[in-house]
Amino acid sequence: MKTIINDLHKAFESRVRLGIMSALAVNESLDFTALKEYLEVTDGNLASHMKALEKEEFVGVKKTFIGRKPNTMYYMTKAGKRAFEEHLNALEALIKSQK
Amino acid sequence: MKTIINDLHKAFESRVRLGIMSALAVNESLDFTALKEYLEVTDGNLASHMKALEKEEFVGVKKTFIGRKPNTMYYMTKAGKRAFEEHLNALEALIKSQK
Repeated sequence: MKTIINDLHKAFESRVRLGIMSALAVNESLDFTALKEYLEVTDGNLASHMKALEKEEFVGVKKTFIGRKPNTMYYMTKAGKRAFEEHLNALEALIKSQK
Repeated sequence: MKTIINDLHKAFESRVRLGIMSALAVNESLDFTALKEYLEVTDGNLASHMKALEKEEFVGVKKTFIGRKPNTMYYMTKAGKRAFEEHLNALEALIKSQK
């Protein structure tokens, strides 16, 4: 039990962050609006979670232009991918311990 | 995706609460000290999470005596069991969507 909980990453506790990482795991990159609509969260809520994930270096940012309009794309870093996989494995172990 | 995240219960977001519910799911009841040692958390941390789970009526409290010493036992309510199972099912669906 102790081990299972210790293997859960604090950065992924929130539902929204689980959603962000899940979405970025199956899409090479997504922009802010796509993530926001996907997860049905407010700008402020998403922005604060993105900032936290960027700070952990689990998510990277790519600034591009669509025509003249700046566009911010988010992607999952290698460290993020590894940490998220570990987190999912720990969750899986916890679920298995309950069945 | 939206559905998966919406099915995750806010009350179980924290690692410690996942640990509490997991422990209470496989033990009929546990006292404060047992939970604390099991999860390796401080008194204050555990107390605040227990209070939150009690407020949701996911966890119940049974006051007993061991000899003359009062002893507080915690157990999972039926509502708690149902909500926790739904949460685990939602986590399982999220994990499956990643594999």
